[in-house]
Amino acid sequence: MATTLTARYAANGNPIEVIELAEEALAAPANGEISVKLLFAPVNPSDINMLEGTYGVKLPLPAVAGNEGVGRVEVVGAGVSDYQVGDLVKTPSTRGTWRQAVTCPAADCIKLPPSLTPEQASMIYVNPPTAWCMLHDFVDLQPGEWVIQNAANSAVGRCVIQIAKALGWKTINLVRREELVEELKALGGDIVVVEAPDTFKQIKTWTNGKPPRLALNAVGGDSAGTLSKSLGDGGKLVTYGGMSKQPIKLATGPLIFKDLSYHGFWMTRWYANRSAQERDTMYQKLADLFANGELKIAVDKVCPLREIKQAVTAALQEKRGGKILLNLQ
Amino acid sequence: MATTLTARYAANGNPIEVIELAEEALAAPANGEISVKLLFAPVNPSDINMLEGTYGVKLPLPAVAGNEGVGRVEVVGAGVSDYQVGDLVKTPSTRGTWRQAVTCPAADCIKLPPSLTPEQASMIYVNPPTAWCMLHDFVDLQPGEWVIQNAANSAVGRCVIQIAKALGWKTINLVRREELVEELKALGGDIVVVEAPDTFKQIKTWTNGKPPRLALNAVGGDSAGTLSKSLGDGGKLVTYGGMSKQPIKLATGPLIFKDLSYHGFWMTRWYANRSAQERDTMYQKLADLFANGELKIAVDKVCPLREIKQAVTAALQEKRGGKILLNLQ
Repeated sequence: MATTLTARYAANGNPIEVIELAEEALAAPANGEISVKLLFAPVNPSDINMLEGTYGVKLPLPAVAGNEGVGRVEVVGAGVSDYQVGDLVKTPSTRGTWRQAVTCPAADCIKLPPSLTPEQASMIYVNPPTAWCMLHDFVDLQPGEWVIQNAANSAVGRCVIQIAKALGWKTINLVRREELVEELKALGGDIVVVEAPDTFKQIKTWTNGKPPRLALNAVGGDSAGTLSKSLGDGGKLVTYGGMSKQPIKLATGPLIFKDLSYHGFWMTRWYANRSAQERDTMYQKLADLFANGELKIAVDKVCPLREIKQAVTAALQEKRGGKILLNLQ
Repeated sequence: MATTLTARYAANGNPIEVIELAEEALAAPANGEISVKLLFAPVNPSDINMLEGTYGVKLPLPAVAGNEGVGRVEVVGAGVSDYQVGDLVKTPSTRGTWRQAVTCPAADCIKLPPSLTPEQASMIYVNPPTAWCMLHDFVDLQPGEWVIQNAANSAVGRCVIQIAKALGWKTINLVRREELVEELKALGGDIVVVEAPDTFKQIKTWTNGKPPRLALNAVGGDSAGTLSKSLGDGGKLVTYGGMSKQPIKLATGPLIFKDLSYHGFWMTRWYANRSAQERDTMYQKLADLFANGELKIAVDKVCPLREIKQAVTAALQEKRGGKILLNLQ
C-alpha cells in the first residue's frame, strides 16, 4: 500500500516538540471515498492550541495535525457522483490536513469555489468565515455603522477590516504596536489606534455619537473592558479568542442599564449547526471578495511540510507579516 | 388648592437622611387626568438606589420617591373613558408613589386586575414580573427543566421559586444562610443550598445530567462564577442585580466552546419596549397565581407614610422576613 507523509503528534505539549513527521498508509478510495492530493495548509492558532491540548476539541492520539487546508481530487471512488478529478476540496479536520494526501469519505469533504487560488482556498475555512459570521450573526448592522475590534492585526482582525469595508461598515481597530497603524489603515481600517486605558472616551467623537453595537474580542482582560466601555446601548461583545489569558470583567450596571450582552463565537459550532447551503453561499461571497481583490490574506512564509518544526516555530512568533503556510506538494 | 403628604428627596445620599416628608399641592384632574388615592407602596432596592443616586434612572430633584405602588381612582377628569372611580391603578413612577394622592394623566397609569388585593397590587409592578420575564424571555424552558439562581431569598428570588414551580420548572437555589434552606424548600424550591465554591460540581447529580440553560444572578462576583460553571452548553446567565458589588468574571473558554452568553435584565426597559397588551396579559397571569395561592409575597412590616425614615431603615436591614410596605391611607 502507498504511504503519505504527515505531520502528527502523539502527545500534547510544547508544539515545537510534539509535532513530528511520520509516514501513514494511504488506501485507494473505497465506495463513497475520494483520494485528495493536498496542496496548502496554514498554521492557525487553533492548530497550536490543539498541539498544546488547550483547544475545545481533542482528537484520539496520535493524530495528524491541521484543521484546514486544501487539495485537489486525484481519484474518485465508486458511488461518488458530486466530485470530479481536479476539484478543489477542503479535506476533513478529523483526519488532519498537514499531510501530502488523504483518502476519505467524499461526504466529509467540502467542495470549494473553483475561482479561488489554491493558497486562498487553503485559508477559507477558518479566518475569513469567522470574520464574516461575527459581522453577520449578532447585530443587524446598518449601512455605515461602526464595529470595534481588538487584535485588529490578527488574521481574523484583518479579514474583519476588509470584509466590513467591502460591505459598507466602518471599523475602529485597536492594536498594540504603533507601526501597525498605517498598515491597517491602508488595508481599509477607518480608525486604527494603539489601545490605551482611555481609548473608549474618543468613541463618541469618532462615531459622531453613534457608538458601535458590535465589538469583536480576541484578547480578553482590560482590552475587553475597553471594548465594553465603547459599546452603545444594546451592544454585543463577541469573543473568539483570549490572547491575554485574562478573564473578561463585566460590571453589573452596563449589563442591566445599557443592555450589553456577551457572547462567544466558535466557527466549529457554526459549521455543526448550519446547512451546507448556508456555508457554500458564504464561501461563494468570500470567493468573490478574493476575486475582486477586496479580500487578501497576507502570507509571511511558505514552508515545505518536511520543515514542519520550523513552520510551527515561525507561527509562534508574535511579529509576523502574515500566515505561515505549509506547502504540501 | 388641596395638598397631599409625600416622601421626597432633594439630594442623593444616605437614604435614611435624604428622605423627608413634605406636603405637595394636589390639583383637581384636568382634561385627560385622574386623581388617585394611594393605598400601599413597597420599599424596593431600586427605590433605595434612586435615593443613593446609583440607579440607572435619575429624576430631576426634588422628587417624590417610590417606583411602584397602587391606589384607587377617586376623581375622573373630562375626556377619560377607560377609568372609573374605584379602579385599582398603578400610578406613574415619574411622579413617585410614596404619597397619599396624585393627580396625573390617565394615559400614564396602568389599570390592574381587580382580583388583586391592594397589598398584592402594590407589589405587582417590579418583583413578580422581573421573575416572570427572566423565566420566559431568554430560554425556551421545557417542562421539568432546571433553572439556577443566587439571591434565592430575595423578593425576586422567591417569586422565581414560586412561578417556576407553578409553571412546571425546577429550581436550584443558592443562599448564604443555612436557616433559609427549609423555608425556601417549603416555598417550592427543589434544591436549596448554602453556596460554596464547589457547589457547581453537584449540578450534574442534582439535574440528572441535564444542567440548567438559565441562571439568574443578582449577586455578581464569585457567586456569578458558580452560576456560570453550573450552566450547560448554550446556557445563559441573566443578571438583574449586583449585591456583592463585584464584577462578573468570564473565562474565554466557556464563552467560545460552551456557547455561554451573558445578559442583563431591567424591568424598566421591558416596560418601555413591550406593548400594553403584553404587560396586561402577564399581569392577569400573575393575578391568577396570586388568586390561587401559588404566588405569595411575604410582608415583614407595614409602616405608615409618616414613619418613612423607620420604613427605609427597616428596608436596609439584610435579615427581613419580607417586604417593607408603606401604608399610604
